[in-house]
Amino acid sequence: MASGEDSLIARYFRPIATDVGAFNLDDDAAIIAPSGEDIVVTTDAIVEGVHFLADDPPDTIARKALRVNLSDLAAKGATCAGFVLTLALRNVDEAWLTAFARGLGEDAKHYGCPLLGGDTVSTPGPLMVSITAFGRVPVGKMVHRSGAKVGDRVMVTGTIGDATLGLAVLKGKLATDDAAAREMLVSRYRIPQPRNAAAMAVRAHASSAMDVSDGLAGDLTKLCAASGVSAAIDAPSIPKSDAAAGLLARGAVGVEALISGGDDYEILCTVADASADAFASEVRRAGVAVSAIGTVIAGNHPPQFLDKQGREIRLSRLSYSHF
Amino acid sequence: MASGEDSLIARYFRPIATDVGAFNLDDDAAIIAPSGEDIVVTTDAIVEGVHFLADDPPDTIARKALRVNLSDLAAKGATCAGFVLTLALRNVDEAWLTAFARGLGEDAKHYGCPLLGGDTVSTPGPLMVSITAFGRVPVGKMVHRSGAKVGDRVMVTGTIGDATLGLAVLKGKLATDDAAAREMLVSRYRIPQPRNAAAMAVRAHASSAMDVSDGLAGDLTKLCAASGVSAAIDAPSIPKSDAAAGLLARGAVGVEALISGGDDYEILCTVADASADAFASEVRRAGVAVSAIGTVIAGNHPPQFLDKQGREIRLSRLSYSHF
Repeated sequence: MASGEDSLIARYFRPIATDVGAFNLDDDAAIIAPSGEDIVVTTDAIVEGVHFLADDPPDTIARKALRVNLSDLAAKGATCAGFVLTLALRNVDEAWLTAFARGLGEDAKHYGCPLLGGDTVSTPGPLMVSITAFGRVPVGKMVHRSGAKVGDRVMVTGTIGDATLGLAVLKGKLATDDAAAREMLVSRYRIPQPRNAAAMAVRAHASSAMDVSDGLAGDLTKLCAASGVSAAIDAPSIPKSDAAAGLLARGAVGVEALISGGDDYEILCTVADASADAFASEVRRAGVAVSAIGTVIAGNHPPQFLDKQGREIRLSRLSYSHF
Repeated sequence: MASGEDSLIARYFRPIATDVGAFNLDDDAAIIAPSGEDIVVTTDAIVEGVHFLADDPPDTIARKALRVNLSDLAAKGATCAGFVLTLALRNVDEAWLTAFARGLGEDAKHYGCPLLGGDTVSTPGPLMVSITAFGRVPVGKMVHRSGAKVGDRVMVTGTIGDATLGLAVLKGKLATDDAAAREMLVSRYRIPQPRNAAAMAVRAHASSAMDVSDGLAGDLTKLCAASGVSAAIDAPSIPKSDAAAGLLARGAVGVEALISGGDDYEILCTVADASADAFASEVRRAGVAVSAIGTVIAGNHPPQFLDKQGREIRLSRLSYSHF
C-alpha cells in the first residue's frame, strides 16, 4: 500500500540510511543521540540553474549538495554526525535517482555523515536539493567567524578560483586547449572537496574560520566584519592550481575573477602567529594543502588584496550574491 | 559591504533569531546545546502550487512551513528546540518578506521554537520553503509509528478533513453559502494547528503515533504497516467540524474525501485501553480535542473504515502522494 513517495524513499534512500537514528526511514523523525557535545547545525540548498546545471551528472549534484554542507562543518571545527535531505523533483526518473542516490551514499560513507531522514516533494519548477547537516564539537568549541585578532595569519586550504573557472568553461565563456586542465576545473565546480580532514586542526588552532563558498574576497570581508578587523592579503600568495595559474599567466583570466568567484569550498581561517606552523603541519598531515596568504590588521575597511608590487587590486565585486 | 543576501537576512530574519545558539545569524552554523536528551530531527518542505497557493498570504505560508514540522515533533512526543529555514525566492519583494518574517517570528515565539539559521537562495521556479525542526525527548522516548498493539484504541486529535475542504473551496471545486464555514475551512488549509500542547501526553501514553499530513486513511495504513497490525475504524466517530459535518449531511462531499484528503496536521496515535481515559483527559486539559475512532486489530490488511451499519467503506485512494 506504499504511496509513490514511500516506494521512492524505500528504493533509493533506505539503503543509504544506515544510522540507527534514521529508523530505516520508516518514521516521521530521526534521532541524534546525546554525546555531551554541542550539535553544530548548518543548512545549504542548491538549485538547478543557479548552483548546478541541468545536465550535470546526477551523482555530482548529490555530492555537491552534501559537500557544501560538510564544508561548513569542517570550517567550524566539527566532526560529522549526519544529515537530512529535502529533494524537490519534477518527476521520478529512475536512472537519475539511481545515480543521485549512489553518489549521495558513497559520500555519506566516505565522510562518515549518514543520511538520517528527509522529505521528497514534487515541484513544477527547477530541481532543488536542500540539506541540513549536523556535526559535533565539545561544548563552546565551535570555531566562529568573529575571533580573528590583529596580527593573526590568514590561511586558506587547497586552491582558490578553480570552480569559478570550471563554471566558465561549462558555460562556454572560457576556452582552453588543455583537456586535463579543463576536466580538473569542471570537476572542481561540480564536486567540491570539503576539507573535513582538517576540521580537528581548525578547532585546535584557528581563532576564526569560515568556508569560502561565495568568493574569497567577499567571504574574507564577512569574516573581518564579524571580527571587527581588516586584513592585508598578498595576492600572489593565494594558492592557485596549475590550470588556474596557466590561464592567469596567459591573460585569459584576471586574479579578480579567481578571488571573487564562488564555489571554492576551501577553509579560510585566521591563526595566531605562534600557532601557524603547528596548524599548517597538522593540516598537511591530514592530507590537505594550506597556504598563508596575509595578515589580520586593524581597521574596519574591507580587506586589501595587494599585487606583487604592493598595489591594491581594485575589485568590482567581492563575491556571488543571490539578490 | 553586505551582499544582497546578507542584508536580506539581517533585515528580515535576524530580529526573530533570538536564541543564543543562532549567533545572531552572523555565523555559518548554529548550535543546539546538549541536554542529555535525544535530539529529534524532522524536515518538511512546502512548494508553491503544490502545498500552498501563489496568492496565499505570505504570513500563512511561513506559518504553514513551520507548523507542518512542529506537527511532526508533537506526534513524536518531543518538545521544541528550534529550526533552520531554507527559502528559495524568485525575487526580493519587501512587502512579501516583511509579512513572511512576521508570521514566522510570531509562530516561533508562540510555539517556543526559535529560528537558529538558514539559507536564502534564488530560484527561477516556484517559491519553496524547507524547514528542519529540532525537538528533545528523554533518551529512547521518541514515540514511533511502530508500537501499536492489538487491542489499543486508535485516537485522533482535533477534526479531520477541514483542510482538504478548504483547498477545494479555494480552487472553486466546492461551493458553500456559509461565509463563516468557508473561512474556517480555508484557514485550516492555510494555517495548520499543530498539537504541540498534547506532546507530553502523547509521550506519556501513546504506544505509537504520527501526524496526519497526507490523509487519515493513508497515514493510518502506514502506522499499521510499521506496527504489523491492522485497525477497525468507526467512520462516524471520526471527528468532524460543524462545517464538514454540514457539507457531509447535504451530500456536497463524501466521507472518503475527508479521510483521504491531506493537510490535517492532527495527531493520530494508539493508546492501550487502560490508558485511554488518562490520555484523553491530559490532552483535553492541554486544550486539544481528542476522539477515539476505533481499535487496533490483528492482520496485515489495510485498516477498515466502517459506516454506521458496519459496512466497509471502499476508498479509491488512501492519501495524497507526490509521485
